[in-house]
Amino acid sequence: MSSSSSYNPPCAACKFVRRKCIPGCAFAPYFPPEDPQKFMNVHKIFGASNFMKLLNDVLPHQREDAVSSLAYEAEARVRDPVYGCVGVISFLQQEVDRLKKDLDAANADLIMLHSFPCHNVNHTWSRQNGRGGGGGGGVGGRWW
Amino acid sequence: MSSSSSYNPPCAACKFVRRKCIPGCAFAPYFPPEDPQKFMNVHKIFGASNFMKLLNDVLPHQREDAVSSLAYEAEARVRDPVYGCVGVISFLQQEVDRLKKDLDAANADLIMLHSFPCHNVNHTWSRQNGRGGGGGGGVGGRWW
Repeated sequence: MSSSSSYNPPCAACKFVRRKCIPGCAFAPYFPPEDPQKFMNVHKIFGASNFMKLLNDVLPHQREDAVSSLAYEAEARVRDPVYGCVGVISFLQQEVDRLKKDLDAANADLIMLHSFPCHNVNHTWSRQNGRGGGGGGGVGGRWW
Repeated sequence: MSSSSSYNPPCAACKFVRRKCIPGCAFAPYFPPEDPQKFMNVHKIFGASNFMKLLNDVLPHQREDAVSSLAYEAEARVRDPVYGCVGVISFLQQEVDRLKKDLDAANADLIMLHSFPCHNVNHTWSRQNGRGGGGGGGVGGRWW
């Protein structure tokens, strides 16, 4: 006979390491039982005890954000074991460089059109528009 | 009497954990003695044995890039214990959003100038130019 009405499932961390999840468990606030992958990622990349050490380095009100960012990093590293979230940074940096270049070119065209408002600038404008939204080069190039 | 001419200093990892750095040391290729901070960061954030496990998950020719990206992540986490390199991603994402918005506005101005080439568009162009290079909002906002 089980007293299922009072059953509290262990948090994902305690379930993973097969220990009893006691009230006040340090992992429970961040690793609900319904998301086991989050703890598995953090455990694989940082190690559970190391992860807790990192959490203890930040103030209590910052811990939720710290867990979220560590879990994000861990997930990125599981997905891409070579570059992890540095691959995302590399991609975004290339995207910023490309957009800055396009914006500079667009502003140069606008300056020219202001200097010569009735001038034909088809050639520069079509270059701009051809660079619309996508692209941005590969992910994972070195930039560090 | 020391035979200093044949002395090979231990790698930064072996020096940190005070062990003999033997030929073929797994850490030596990535942690030269002249950069002790690189290993200290990796040790603090990932733990030395966990770090080696992560390296063993990638192919030998990918290990140098994996070490560089892990060292970058570790350094970012030491600098910013709450957000680590996720703070960099957040900042770059905001920068991409801002630049896309500015580029869209510049392209809209260019389209208008092409439709009405002799029209006065000072108001839109000065808005563009006011958004030049800097800014981009704070680092570390949530986006995950």
